[in-house]
Amino acid sequence: MKIAVDAMGGDFAPEEIVLGAIEAVKEYDLDVVLVGDENRINPLLQKQDGIVSDRISVYHASQTIDMDEHPGVSVRKKKDASIVVATRLVKEGVCDAVVAAGSTGAAVAAAMFGLGRIKGVARPTIATPIPNLTGTTILLDSGANVDCKPKHLVQSAVMGSIYSEYVLGIAKPRVGLLNIGEEETKGNEQTLTTFPLLKQLTTINFIGNVEGRDIPKGTVDVVVCDGFVGNVVLKLGEGLASAIMQLIKEAIKGSGFLTKIASLAVLPALKGLKKKLDYAEYGGAPLLGVDGGFIICHGSSKAKAIKNAIRVAHEIVEQKVIEHIRDSIAKEGIVTNDNE
Amino acid sequence: MKIAVDAMGGDFAPEEIVLGAIEAVKEYDLDVVLVGDENRINPLLQKQDGIVSDRISVYHASQTIDMDEHPGVSVRKKKDASIVVATRLVKEGVCDAVVAAGSTGAAVAAAMFGLGRIKGVARPTIATPIPNLTGTTILLDSGANVDCKPKHLVQSAVMGSIYSEYVLGIAKPRVGLLNIGEEETKGNEQTLTTFPLLKQLTTINFIGNVEGRDIPKGTVDVVVCDGFVGNVVLKLGEGLASAIMQLIKEAIKGSGFLTKIASLAVLPALKGLKKKLDYAEYGGAPLLGVDGGFIICHGSSKAKAIKNAIRVAHEIVEQKVIEHIRDSIAKEGIVTNDNE
Repeated sequence: MKIAVDAMGGDFAPEEIVLGAIEAVKEYDLDVVLVGDENRINPLLQKQDGIVSDRISVYHASQTIDMDEHPGVSVRKKKDASIVVATRLVKEGVCDAVVAAGSTGAAVAAAMFGLGRIKGVARPTIATPIPNLTGTTILLDSGANVDCKPKHLVQSAVMGSIYSEYVLGIAKPRVGLLNIGEEETKGNEQTLTTFPLLKQLTTINFIGNVEGRDIPKGTVDVVVCDGFVGNVVLKLGEGLASAIMQLIKEAIKGSGFLTKIASLAVLPALKGLKKKLDYAEYGGAPLLGVDGGFIICHGSSKAKAIKNAIRVAHEIVEQKVIEHIRDSIAKEGIVTNDNE
Repeated sequence: MKIAVDAMGGDFAPEEIVLGAIEAVKEYDLDVVLVGDENRINPLLQKQDGIVSDRISVYHASQTIDMDEHPGVSVRKKKDASIVVATRLVKEGVCDAVVAAGSTGAAVAAAMFGLGRIKGVARPTIATPIPNLTGTTILLDSGANVDCKPKHLVQSAVMGSIYSEYVLGIAKPRVGLLNIGEEETKGNEQTLTTFPLLKQLTTINFIGNVEGRDIPKGTVDVVVCDGFVGNVVLKLGEGLASAIMQLIKEAIKGSGFLTKIASLAVLPALKGLKKKLDYAEYGGAPLLGVDGGFIICHGSSKAKAIKNAIRVAHEIVEQKVIEHIRDSIAKEGIVTNDNE
């Protein structure tokens, strides 16, 4: 299996991207094609040994897309941009999936133009893994689509459930609709209209409405919501986790001498906690609904996050997630013919 | 000044409500009228000394409204329900503000029917204080109104700014619109339409769009959003904070002997952190936009939360928050004539 990695995207490209790819081919049974400026990538691979040079190749792309460029326009104009080329390699069957850490907008646009949507899917959705007390909750959509119609949420539910089952290995994932109360009568117009549609689905385990607190608790495996709400949830979660870590450090710092000494012994426990809250451990977020494996990473991804994203891309292909989505969308009769 | 407290509302009524009232009159310069079943309230006051019996009186109300009753219907039917009577005492000028810990729906309905809206306000909004790294952010609306129109958000911005300034004592509070990006062009239909309206306001310090992570960071004092989003934010925040505290405890528990011993010394620091994250410290959340001081408390409020809510009610009256809202709504020309 070959994963195309956009080597030029993200705050630490290409250095950390290349490092992540090196770690991935050492750890997993896959090949990586690094797409981007060969003059910058090749020197980073020079001192590598046999396995790495066997399994990593470089595919030159002369352009890049910056964070502040208009995604749709730049993807159409810059035909030799690394993200565009990486996507084309999948479309042409040279590679099996894409990993991208640059502009999320450009990545989504490249995937839409380059791979197209899975037949019947109205809007592709970003499914972000969120750590909880007992495992991982998949949140979707987490920012690709705002002002979603009920059918978009319904398709998200189906796609998220498949991802949770086949990639995270959760049998019969509990799918919940993010709402402001558990009762069926609670909600805004969007959730009130979506609820009965979700209840009708036969391929997922819909457990009803869930609330914000259910995400960290881990009482739900797949949380469906509008991309506006999902994006707020994601950024609040990140911000709150980092604020609490800071408060703990300050509390220890500001305390007495004995506590300071004692805290040295507690530090390993805190590090374990930090690791649990670290998005890098979870790799990237899949863009579900496009016709090919496509993983979007945090812009500040370092090697570990890239390595894990490559692992996730591998899983998506191995577990035939695209095929399962196509089957379920058809089976549920929630096919749409255009980008409604 | 006299604060009417619904003694029958909340999970720990009337015991904890009465205890909170006792603590409040001992600590602050105010009187409390406990509204509810005198046969249950009076015994709880029996052993109290001079100050308490001087400053606390009981006003009998024979009915209560349960959490599962329809708010609007029950408030209209049960004319002798404690929350209805407490609100009437303010309307009649006997008391100056209400504190309520029962059903939020019933409290909002009682306030709407009993006090009415401040002239020009379309929808009253719940303004919830949220702890952040440097102080307190006011989030509104946090659940009273979903599917808000832009003018509702604009009125929320004005009311929240006044509350932050006069009750929390923040000069020129930074008011932000909760969104999925900082740029003016980011957002859903609701925020895109609201942004230019907020920019036109002259009585507030609008700093533009803010993101989920800005709330815990403390880079914004007043965050304006739809009640659906606000409610998700609030419940996610509560859930995440308690999940992280649990993870810390587990991390320490699962670690080696030395760490366990050491952690005993770190406990005071953790307790300080817990206190910082404890909603009880912040009292209740004001219902802004009704024509009278009205504080809604968490259903699981204990004495400390009730005491702090009584303090907040006192501040609202003392600082003439209602008058300031009336003035600003008129001055900004964002008056509406009905519940649009």
